[in-house]
Amino acid sequence: MRQFVVIGHDVPTDPDAISLSDIPGAGRLDLLCRCVSAGVFLSHGIRERVRVHLVVADELTVSFDADSLRHLHPDERNVAARIRDALDARPDAIGHMPADVSPGVELRRMGVEATLERLTDTADATLVQLHEEGEPLVEADPPSDPVFVLSDHNDFTAEEAETLAAAAERRVRVGPELLHADHAISVVHNWLDTDGYTSY
Amino acid sequence: MRQFVVIGHDVPTDPDAISLSDIPGAGRLDLLCRCVSAGVFLSHGIRERVRVHLVVADELTVSFDADSLRHLHPDERNVAARIRDALDARPDAIGHMPADVSPGVELRRMGVEATLERLTDTADATLVQLHEEGEPLVEADPPSDPVFVLSDHNDFTAEEAETLAAAAERRVRVGPELLHADHAISVVHNWLDTDGYTSY
Repeated sequence: MRQFVVIGHDVPTDPDAISLSDIPGAGRLDLLCRCVSAGVFLSHGIRERVRVHLVVADELTVSFDADSLRHLHPDERNVAARIRDALDARPDAIGHMPADVSPGVELRRMGVEATLERLTDTADATLVQLHEEGEPLVEADPPSDPVFVLSDHNDFTAEEAETLAAAAERRVRVGPELLHADHAISVVHNWLDTDGYTSY
Repeated sequence: MRQFVVIGHDVPTDPDAISLSDIPGAGRLDLLCRCVSAGVFLSHGIRERVRVHLVVADELTVSFDADSLRHLHPDERNVAARIRDALDARPDAIGHMPADVSPGVELRRMGVEATLERLTDTADATLVQLHEEGEPLVEADPPSDPVFVLSDHNDFTAEEAETLAAAAERRVRVGPELLHADHAISVVHNWLDTDGYTSY
């Protein structure tokens, strides 16, 4: 299982504040939509065993499970509509129980820390921070069940950086250039697809 | 200079047929928009020495030059609006002379073959086809001035495949999975950024 957690600092938790005609205006939701697409789609299908989790304003987390997604298209508007539906289901997410939004989409009332704790609660999961001082991908061995954590157009906050420094088992670096989160997901998938650039 | 040519088979040449509220409905223009973004953007800026050329219906080519682009944002709607403006400038593209649309955006009355000829007309350019039987990226040496050719959600037509077989100097393969064109661009950029995964 590959998982990607993307922290959206500025996305509103109120679905009525999201206009599908101005997706960037909703706290750069466009970037998060592209992260979902880069995470779950192949050219003519959907990847297996991939989940993408969007943390919204450190309060709610929308999760996409590639194995059960239905009728999702890779364009921003389609993904944004699904995220808006998820936020609309807020009243059904009680405590840490998820609200089922649509096949493969769940909403949880969890911020960054609770989401990372939940995802690394299984024995095999390895929390991996993408970090400019991390080990270059080409030199690193891919972990078997990685949970990658990325930030939106903002840097990680001091608090998030502290949480990650304590929780992340690995730090890897995608290259010399700082990439958008969605582009970094494409690079990381390719690294895993080729088993660390060794298997073609 | 890195260049990416993306062939959009189904995108209408008539800008009035493109609705910004239904970008995928315009022949999967959403994919082409994401290709532009993956081509020209870094996390907090624009790449240098990159051009992305979108071939529309084998008739017109919209070119984005990262070095002169202004006020472009990476969301699909913003890029789609720029493409629509470019198509609107059709009457100004006469013969092979480009129409200047906005800073860094040009329209040419050229299909696939003419565009590839134009781009490889300089001594150093190397036409590279992304192909599932090509050399794995990790084993290939990056050419100095590569022109990568990709297709949209459709395969290359028989005619395009023939043109490429004759014109492409190199064939490379991004991995075992078939990726969307925009995701492939992110992978290829990373390969070039790291000088074939050797320089971090």
